[in-house]
Amino acid sequence: MIDAELPWAVDAGIELHSIEYGKVTLGLPYQERSIRPGGSISGPHMMMLADACMYAVVLSMIGKVELAVTTSFNINFLRKPSESDLSAEGKIIKLGKRLAVLEVSIFSKEDIVAHATGTYSIPPDR
Amino acid sequence: MIDAELPWAVDAGIELHSIEYGKVTLGLPYQERSIRPGGSISGPHMMMLADACMYAVVLSMIGKVELAVTTSFNINFLRKPSESDLSAEGKIIKLGKRLAVLEVSIFSKEDIVAHATGTYSIPPDR
Amino acid sequence: MIDAELPWAVDAGIELHSIEYGKVTLGLPYQERSIRPGGSISGPHMMMLADACMYAVVLSMIGKVELAVTTSFNINFLRKPSESDLSAEGKIIKLGKRLAVLEVSIFSKEDIVAHATGTYSIPPDR
Amino acid sequence: MIDAELPWAVDAGIELHSIEYGKVTLGLPYQERSIRPGGSISGPHMMMLADACMYAVVLSMIGKVELAVTTSFNINFLRKPSESDLSAEGKIIKLGKRLAVLEVSIFSKEDIVAHATGTYSIPPDR
Repeated sequence: MIDAELPWAVDAGIELHSIEYGKVTLGLPYQERSIRPGGSISGPHMMMLADACMYAVVLSMIGKVELAVTTSFNINFLRKPSESDLSAEGKIIKLGKRLAVLEVSIFSKEDIVAHATGTYSIPPDR
Repeated sequence: MIDAELPWAVDAGIELHSIEYGKVTLGLPYQERSIRPGGSISGPHMMMLADACMYAVVLSMIGKVELAVTTSFNINFLRKPSESDLSAEGKIIKLGKRLAVLEVSIFSKEDIVAHATGTYSIPPDR
Repeated sequence: MIDAELPWAVDAGIELHSIEYGKVTLGLPYQERSIRPGGSISGPHMMMLADACMYAVVLSMIGKVELAVTTSFNINFLRKPSESDLSAEGKIIKLGKRLAVLEVSIFSKEDIVAHATGTYSIPPDR
Repeated sequence: MIDAELPWAVDAGIELHSIEYGKVTLGLPYQERSIRPGGSISGPHMMMLADACMYAVVLSMIGKVELAVTTSFNINFLRKPSESDLSAEGKIIKLGKRLAVLEVSIFSKEDIVAHATGTYSIPPDR
């Protein structure tokens, strides 16, 4: 399902490490050459990883929903990642009828390097 | 300068439309085929555009600063973009000694589709 | 209308300086003695002022709406206010059918001291 | 220490339920009559509670720091609280040399009603 729903994440090198109801871990291997400087450790790359992780958490809970879209996203960058793989741990904060609120922590080795929260709008007629 | 400092933005197709002290406009042409579904109109793509625009505003004010990094980023997605070019208008909210706060509005044709604020940390010894 | 809808803001000393469609300015006189240290210049006090200003902007555009509620709120504190009056300038970023997105800048004398964005949920059947 | 450092929180009726290194629980009893409509369940009231909780977490880790100030604050309101007591559970996400990042969940009875993240600036010479 992840492959089908998040092809761009797969293309970007993102891997699914674990998924259960309301909780997902993704990995992003370090790539020396990347489409942008800093590679997998640039700010936008981490935002992409966090957004993918939030969407995977939504998928884990309600399955494929055509029109589930991010409505807001907030991230704090906590320290410069080392040049190594990243992992993202996402979990649900609250699943409502029309809105899901999610949280993602991004780690570089053992260190937390970024923390994001976001909201997904869920169509009422799913 | 933008070319040198934001090669990944150039690679992603981002174009500099205008730049003056504290105010920058970038464009992102619509690409039918993209590295991710929704192409240039996906959430992560708009976040990348907003982040590039913020960095360009910092550049416009203080020039190249090695260690200027995004420390926080917040975005509200306001409506689904149409399948057309995006433009991003960034401006400074406050430039302090150690922190710059910035604002970016993203437009699809005439409509605002996203609004972001962010903070950049500026090294004290620049 | 403001008096009726924002009695707590009036109680807190907040004054309406100007209101037009989509744009509102509020003032908060400096109070030496206040319910909290720092008085009218503490963080929570500025958050209250920003939230009141956002709600007033919503009022200016769609009138009294029973169930309009803040759904998210983001603020950056930019510098320590001086011990003087605060003013808040709020404006609409986008008014949609179900969501309003707003922006508020807070000033102490001539200096911007905080910048906030927020979203208000608007009931569909108003 | 909490009494001395957060007198305004005590004045507002906020109670310390538990405190350990990096983790604090506060309570806010429901007050029928309050300085603002909705009393202890209005948006600004919850923001004040969350901010107090974040500061208490900072206190639990580094003690009294004269110039520790909130630099950013983000909150998602998840559901309308019932007319009952609120509790706030705060914990550290990352304590750095110059910045602390914190998270607070606010509960009404068993339900999470709001979730906030914030950053505190810590003076380098403490």
